[in-house]
Amino acid sequence: MDKIKIVIVGYGNVGRGVMKAIDANDDMELVGIASRNPARVQKEVTSVPVVFMDDVATWKKELNVDVAILCGGSKDDLPVQGPAISKHVCTIDSFDNHSCIPQYFATMDENTKAAGTAAAVSIGWDPGIFSLERVLASAFLPGSKADGFYGLSESGGLSMGHSDALRTIAGIKDARQYTHAIPEAIDRVRNGKSPEFNAGDMHWRECFVVLEDGADKEAIEAEIKAMPAYFEPYKTTVNFISQEELDSKYSGFPHDGCVVASGITGEANKATIEYRCTWESNPEATANVLVAHARAISRMFKEGKTGAFTILDIPPAYLSQYSQAELLKNFM
Amino acid sequence: MDKIKIVIVGYGNVGRGVMKAIDANDDMELVGIASRNPARVQKEVTSVPVVFMDDVATWKKELNVDVAILCGGSKDDLPVQGPAISKHVCTIDSFDNHSCIPQYFATMDENTKAAGTAAAVSIGWDPGIFSLERVLASAFLPGSKADGFYGLSESGGLSMGHSDALRTIAGIKDARQYTHAIPEAIDRVRNGKSPEFNAGDMHWRECFVVLEDGADKEAIEAEIKAMPAYFEPYKTTVNFISQEELDSKYSGFPHDGCVVASGITGEANKATIEYRCTWESNPEATANVLVAHARAISRMFKEGKTGAFTILDIPPAYLSQYSQAELLKNFM
Repeated sequence: MDKIKIVIVGYGNVGRGVMKAIDANDDMELVGIASRNPARVQKEVTSVPVVFMDDVATWKKELNVDVAILCGGSKDDLPVQGPAISKHVCTIDSFDNHSCIPQYFATMDENTKAAGTAAAVSIGWDPGIFSLERVLASAFLPGSKADGFYGLSESGGLSMGHSDALRTIAGIKDARQYTHAIPEAIDRVRNGKSPEFNAGDMHWRECFVVLEDGADKEAIEAEIKAMPAYFEPYKTTVNFISQEELDSKYSGFPHDGCVVASGITGEANKATIEYRCTWESNPEATANVLVAHARAISRMFKEGKTGAFTILDIPPAYLSQYSQAELLKNFM
Repeated sequence: MDKIKIVIVGYGNVGRGVMKAIDANDDMELVGIASRNPARVQKEVTSVPVVFMDDVATWKKELNVDVAILCGGSKDDLPVQGPAISKHVCTIDSFDNHSCIPQYFATMDENTKAAGTAAAVSIGWDPGIFSLERVLASAFLPGSKADGFYGLSESGGLSMGHSDALRTIAGIKDARQYTHAIPEAIDRVRNGKSPEFNAGDMHWRECFVVLEDGADKEAIEAEIKAMPAYFEPYKTTVNFISQEELDSKYSGFPHDGCVVASGITGEANKATIEYRCTWESNPEATANVLVAHARAISRMFKEGKTGAFTILDIPPAYLSQYSQAELLKNFM
């Protein structure tokens, strides 16, 4: 069987995760990495060619690429790279700016249909797996409401977006932000209260901050807590620590979360559905989900399907490394 | 919008649940019930016609049926009814004899393709939702192994099959069997041991038995514990109680369960996925899942798709009561 030939676009934490994930899937093969700075990445990666990101038509052809996995960020990278690259080759991305997904999907759908390619968009654990679980819960328990919680473990889950936001503040040298779910809120959903939560009812935020020399602790703590959307609606704690402590205790990328839905069946019988995942490495977990979708999109494209797809549009068997006969025998 | 017109085939606990589930879904309409004994069922149900099960071609046409939801058992009913009814109309069933699913699927696939109909087979929570979660876990965590556990709550989960098995024993007047998961086994999976379990390592069985007058307690307890497959491999407890106590304390149909998978991402980062559902009424929960699949099969059939499908072959959006625009905006 021909292996699915994959290019990684953007070699950050998720891109590195995709590289490892491809190794764990026998039906796939990494054929190259596309970067804005190929010379820098080629120093680290010697096993495959590193090509210039913008030369899509060239590397698509020369590397015989089936699928490009876009590992850039949702703010600046994907809105440009998604349409530009999917003009030439099937793509997978993890566009995760929830409120902009309808617009991004429409752009990608129009673009890929015109180009005769296929794209899986907004793939990962949320949006992605959690989106799927929300849809399943609402289909199986009409009238129920599913809520997502993040940072269930005692140490919470590392939020890259909030860590980046902290580092934009003048006087902050380095920082990490851990999100914590509020257990009582999860219990309220489990108990079928279908509560209408404000953001601050569901999560609190724990910051570990390294200051620049001479920075004003109190002013910075106040600035963090007042940052709109990121910290203002939440209970937020700020811990000032040394760079050494940050590097030794908070250098990983752990995260976890759950989707909880509660509803009824029949007239009044209670029903609860809960999906939970725990990742020691959040970017590697995202990478694994992206890679499974590369398999699905490659299959769908071979069947002649074009356009944009979310996880909701893909028959789950297409994600699997197993044949239909194996799935019927061992998984049903 | 035309409502999806549904006939319930077989009016037992699941059939009653389907009737209530259709009420909770605005895009569906119950148009009839098909029974082996229409006169008996018509006494209970006055809102729709009750027709004779075997007159499929007639009721399909007269009631203008889109989908028949087959609510019979896997042992004797579905192997006959599935092929016979899906010759005429799209069907949904909950065939749950796991080892026979490949054969049943093949029969239904051949049958429906020849007839130009579509069928969703082996739909419910296991097989069904749990099958889907096993496949997703193995796709996202290659090399992981997912295990299913049933009866997580303190009181366990009611097993109809095992209750029926108890009632086949001479001297037993009535009985209920509650399945209990063994928590240490769940923890072993969560902790990434990927253990190879024997059946008795994962669950134990609790029986509540009402004896006929003069029956031999000790002989019956021994006979239960020696019953192959059903009880012999498990730790089993037998409690003899009165019919009154059975009726008052053990008349519901509660069940719950989880799928747990543990694996790694990258080189050695731990990852755990867990799906859990809790039903106060197991047959109503199964009914809700069947009804969502009636929506999916009706849509797929309208698009010209024929043949047999499991939950693994159906894009999840097809199960949803919401439009693509609503799903992109509110669920992604």
